[in-house]
Amino acid sequence: MTIAAELKDKGLKAKKAARFLANLNTTKKNEALLAMAEALEKEKEVILEANAIDMADGKEKGLSTALLDRLLLNEKRISDMAESLRELVALPDPVGEVTSMWKRPNGLEIGRVRVPLGVIGIIYEARPNVTVDAAGLCLKTGNAVILRGGSEAINSNKALTRVISKAAEAAGIIEGAIQLIETTDREAVKILLKANDYLDVLIPRGGAGLIRTVVENATVPVIETGVGNCHVYVDAAADLEMANNIVVNAKTQRPAVCNAMETLLVHEKVADEFLPIVAESLKEKGVTIRGCEKTRAIVPWAKEATEEDWYTEYLDLILAVRVVDGFETALDHIDKYGTKHTEAIVTQDYQTAREFLARVDAAAVYVNASTRFTDGNEFGFGAEIGISTQKLHARGPMGPEQLTTFKYIIYGSGQIR
Amino acid sequence: MTIAAELKDKGLKAKKAARFLANLNTTKKNEALLAMAEALEKEKEVILEANAIDMADGKEKGLSTALLDRLLLNEKRISDMAESLRELVALPDPVGEVTSMWKRPNGLEIGRVRVPLGVIGIIYEARPNVTVDAAGLCLKTGNAVILRGGSEAINSNKALTRVISKAAEAAGIIEGAIQLIETTDREAVKILLKANDYLDVLIPRGGAGLIRTVVENATVPVIETGVGNCHVYVDAAADLEMANNIVVNAKTQRPAVCNAMETLLVHEKVADEFLPIVAESLKEKGVTIRGCEKTRAIVPWAKEATEEDWYTEYLDLILAVRVVDGFETALDHIDKYGTKHTEAIVTQDYQTAREFLARVDAAAVYVNASTRFTDGNEFGFGAEIGISTQKLHARGPMGPEQLTTFKYIIYGSGQIR
Repeated sequence: MTIAAELKDKGLKAKKAARFLANLNTTKKNEALLAMAEALEKEKEVILEANAIDMADGKEKGLSTALLDRLLLNEKRISDMAESLRELVALPDPVGEVTSMWKRPNGLEIGRVRVPLGVIGIIYEARPNVTVDAAGLCLKTGNAVILRGGSEAINSNKALTRVISKAAEAAGIIEGAIQLIETTDREAVKILLKANDYLDVLIPRGGAGLIRTVVENATVPVIETGVGNCHVYVDAAADLEMANNIVVNAKTQRPAVCNAMETLLVHEKVADEFLPIVAESLKEKGVTIRGCEKTRAIVPWAKEATEEDWYTEYLDLILAVRVVDGFETALDHIDKYGTKHTEAIVTQDYQTAREFLARVDAAAVYVNASTRFTDGNEFGFGAEIGISTQKLHARGPMGPEQLTTFKYIIYGSGQIR
Repeated sequence: MTIAAELKDKGLKAKKAARFLANLNTTKKNEALLAMAEALEKEKEVILEANAIDMADGKEKGLSTALLDRLLLNEKRISDMAESLRELVALPDPVGEVTSMWKRPNGLEIGRVRVPLGVIGIIYEARPNVTVDAAGLCLKTGNAVILRGGSEAINSNKALTRVISKAAEAAGIIEGAIQLIETTDREAVKILLKANDYLDVLIPRGGAGLIRTVVENATVPVIETGVGNCHVYVDAAADLEMANNIVVNAKTQRPAVCNAMETLLVHEKVADEFLPIVAESLKEKGVTIRGCEKTRAIVPWAKEATEEDWYTEYLDLILAVRVVDGFETALDHIDKYGTKHTEAIVTQDYQTAREFLARVDAAAVYVNASTRFTDGNEFGFGAEIGISTQKLHARGPMGPEQLTTFKYIIYGSGQIR
């Protein structure tokens, strides 16, 4: 079978499964999620064996320690995956909710009801836990899923998908609800990007390169996730102790994620007092600072920031720092260099806080809190399939609701125009 | 200036205008809409002169009567455009609405607030009224708009855009809120499709060819509009008089629009009684029928329907008719040939009605009403920018709300993770 034929076959099965899932009641879906969780734990040996092959191949190929760590499965990680499936059971099912209903003057009753998207394609990199998380969330929301993971994790992903899809089928879910593209040929991605016949949406999860490839080449609608060049702006009216805590947390608590801070902006009125304190706190955590001229005058050990730095998502213990002459300059900087992901201000001034919330264009805009809260679980969504950085459909952390669309249902009694 | 340079200049102006519009209060936006309406009526001579050039050029090029009719402006049509702007004033402004707000265990207060999309690109064909309608709706919803109309209407569009943008500016709206691409070179469309730097969304309005080109080539997120291969299914338990009225209305009240019916499905139990009646009613309205074998046995003058017919959006006084052996076959037919736009059932059976509403995957699903109601005004949205046939972001008639997105605003008191 050619790759195109294999994908078409999977696509048709997924479409059929999506039709089945769209009207499956919540109890059945939850039973399947529990069965999947149980199967993961029961068949952990098979999964660990498959993962051992990926790990050995990865070491041979010379993958970085960070990548090997993402790839690694162990008993604890398998139980965590099972646990995350069980947590989905407790979440409300968004499907079937009538979010509004109204009556027209001619007597038509029009309702807007939440329905699954249909078939979701997910293209991701080396984390095998995405396989289980995505499959679980799609099932909970009544969507069929076609998964395409990184080639480094292919054996782990095959084992995981077999275990959970078999368990789901045994619990009464039709075949085709959870499918993995088993070839690692890049041709398969090219085909997926244009598979408008059977994919309703594509969600890329991974680095900037992957996302760019998908956005530039897909004809299937895409939800763009990922890049976060996030700022914290310390205003003239900031509580500087709070600002110090927020800056250190936003930069260092987990620097490799998209909601970590990448550039600190400081109002010139408080720069002399604040920068020495925060620089010291950051230094203790191993952070390198790349500063503007004014920053370097105050923090002599800071390196020089170039224009390039303002655009950079370091995902590392590096921070760009700029002293600004006021609120408007801070807004202009964020507007020019930001990626509309997460932006924060630290201030005690009422009007400045309101202006920042109103005028900054980003998925999440904070007053007096760390940027690290832009996350499905922290927002209370219970699960997350990624963080959207586009404006259509979903923006910010995507929980179960963002994997649904709606349709209008109209009750008539013979109305014509 | 090259086309690319002209577009970039317009793009930057639009981005600046979008920032301004996003926080402009409703009163100011409404004042501008009223000023635009007044200017249209005051400067109708200039507009009619420009339109006369387009009409003369169109006749010379041999445009069809239908196309020339769409292109034509007269005093009545100009007042209609002005009236539609005034109607927007009365509509609620969706921007700024906090659709939900909740408090997290750590004290963070998270709100979801409606904001404009930013810069909207609209690519359309020969109707000059789209220029005014789209500009008005974008302004009302705080979006900047870049318009690209059909080359046949270029002089009309230039005149209209100049009149309304000048009026908007005089009413205090920043330059760049309403812009028209003035070149008719196709290169401009190619550039727009990839203008991710300054366009937040592209909405194509027009025929299937235009929409396909946009969907296949755009890297900017697209809202697909348009194609409607809509069905009416007359169930065994239908009130046949009601069914006759609905079928005639759905096919003939305005056959050239996307929510007109294209295929009629009839349950075999009522085919013998219903088809002769409805065929007669349709014949009186000048409708040609293309039927399956069973249909032709009952309606001898019906032509033969080919596989191609089931896929066809005629947009004309032609109707495909198929007798089906039951509800499941009707659902399968709709699933296979439909475009997920609008689907209707006529039935008096409670369970069948519920099943149809639940199981048909389309933007609008009707029981006992004409397909012709899938329309922003008929739904009570007050205005419409098009009818989305995709599932992301907007589905069905797009009113002012669908030209907005949201952002999360988070009120903290020093929270860190």
